[in-house]
Amino acid sequence: LNAILLAMTGMEPETWVARLKALDPDRDVRAWPEVGNPQEIAYAMAWKPEPGALDGLSNLKAVFSLGAGVDALLAIDGLPDVPLVRVVDPDLTMRMSEYVVLNVLLHHRHMLRALDDQRARRWEPRDQPAASSVRVGILGLGELGLDAARKLTMMGFQVAGWSRSAKQRHGIATYFGEVGLKQMLGRTDILVVLLPLTPATTGIIDTVLLRGLARDGALGGPVLINAGRGGLQNEADVLAALDDGTLLAASLDVFVTEPLPESSPFWTHPKVIVTPHVGADSDPEALARYLMGQVHRFEAGEGLTNVVDRTAGY
Amino acid sequence: LNAILLAMTGMEPETWVARLKALDPDRDVRAWPEVGNPQEIAYAMAWKPEPGALDGLSNLKAVFSLGAGVDALLAIDGLPDVPLVRVVDPDLTMRMSEYVVLNVLLHHRHMLRALDDQRARRWEPRDQPAASSVRVGILGLGELGLDAARKLTMMGFQVAGWSRSAKQRHGIATYFGEVGLKQMLGRTDILVVLLPLTPATTGIIDTVLLRGLARDGALGGPVLINAGRGGLQNEADVLAALDDGTLLAASLDVFVTEPLPESSPFWTHPKVIVTPHVGADSDPEALARYLMGQVHRFEAGEGLTNVVDRTAGY
Repeated sequence: LNAILLAMTGMEPETWVARLKALDPDRDVRAWPEVGNPQEIAYAMAWKPEPGALDGLSNLKAVFSLGAGVDALLAIDGLPDVPLVRVVDPDLTMRMSEYVVLNVLLHHRHMLRALDDQRARRWEPRDQPAASSVRVGILGLGELGLDAARKLTMMGFQVAGWSRSAKQRHGIATYFGEVGLKQMLGRTDILVVLLPLTPATTGIIDTVLLRGLARDGALGGPVLINAGRGGLQNEADVLAALDDGTLLAASLDVFVTEPLPESSPFWTHPKVIVTPHVGADSDPEALARYLMGQVHRFEAGEGLTNVVDRTAGY
Repeated sequence: LNAILLAMTGMEPETWVARLKALDPDRDVRAWPEVGNPQEIAYAMAWKPEPGALDGLSNLKAVFSLGAGVDALLAIDGLPDVPLVRVVDPDLTMRMSEYVVLNVLLHHRHMLRALDDQRARRWEPRDQPAASSVRVGILGLGELGLDAARKLTMMGFQVAGWSRSAKQRHGIATYFGEVGLKQMLGRTDILVVLLPLTPATTGIIDTVLLRGLARDGALGGPVLINAGRGGLQNEADVLAALDDGTLLAASLDVFVTEPLPESSPFWTHPKVIVTPHVGADSDPEALARYLMGQVHRFEAGEGLTNVVDRTAGY
């Protein structure tokens, strides 16, 4: 029967049922908790599922994440031992690069200061380094990091990227491993974080990392842009770095606790741009096409793509 | 002798003398009003020269503008009848595209609203159109317009461009002439103005033009970005368009009167981003290399490039 079970919170399951059935009208698509006979479920599509929502699906063939990051799914106790598929969607990648290029340019062009000047009715042109004298370092060289790197290179920035394991990326200086991380930080004026959240990356943005950033750059101090996951950053360390001048400024789209609590000092920090985890909202239509495309190719015997390596965590 | 006369206001002539002599130590470089024997001046390099500063240079061979726009020089009564050379500098082009891409993304991602949300400690993710559903129209397809068009295309936007006379530009929908202008405006959500200021373009951004912009776009209303010259915009019309909803928002880097007077309503308008004519500051070192390169090629018999068509005004 190969039915699909949607197990999601914070999204509308009925809309998703309609969306998937529009692409495959004969498919049996069910929204948790209306599971019916659990043995008929072949695929689960999940976003922050309720505890136990994926239990007892004895004929399950794959779990599909509805988001790019799979850290929340991997954290589920008793996640079924079937292939876990993550989203690699050109639309999502384009949107993330919009966020990254926008925020790199915001800091490169000192827009926070420019907006202050505007509020004070101050006409004060200031010297401006060329992008070619500003070094951007990207943590994470998957689909998202690579696309951002290419676009920032085209904008004229000196771009380097770091990944856990060695990767060759045409046209970008690449670093890897512990030693490579220190090397890249030392030549980085604007740090863009696009890492997956795994046990190895949790809290990686801490005082030691931030103090390793270049201090001789054209912007007057290093800038942090976190578009990955809140869990990557030690928020006390980031705040301390902003306050003691280790960081010039930051753009934070993700936080340890979301929604960001009203009491968070990030909201009103003059050096911080806060956005509500909107770096890369996926287009639901594009996502639905991706998911059904995976199911159809799988059923045609072509196998699944973008299957998560559970040991690596992404 | 082929001496160079620097005739500039608002820049430091001594620094410029040193910069040019560093590239050509034997060259006689003079800063107005220390003209010496005017017959020895072969080249004038000018930026907003004092009235009369270019008079009586009987052996002058060329006037070089120190800025990309030559409208101020062309407005000089009795401008010597020698070739007038404008700046076409890859560094300046890159910087202008930074400004354009930054401001297009600012409005595309509704950053003014996001900054308001931040100030109010409001965590409110909102639906966001993809760049591929947003249409950017560029007025002016010279070096600056073309580079901006290419970069916006790469960011995923639907880009079109308009120029006075027909131009073929690979990968960009192009329009020209009066009819083409109306057509392009009708498919434009974000209008980027990079025109030269000429008698034909003065005041071109008026109520009629703004009302011709698309009203069915993904952003909820059209956006104006003027990075060209203040004289291109009828400022009363722009304000009225912002206030009556004809425009959703605007980024203005240039104004009819600069510095923008403290009394201008643009300063505090909630829909406007004001910057102090910093769209594309040229790197003085790059500019000096460009100017001396022109002089050296000219003296080697290779002729001048980027000579202004005085009838067209650019």
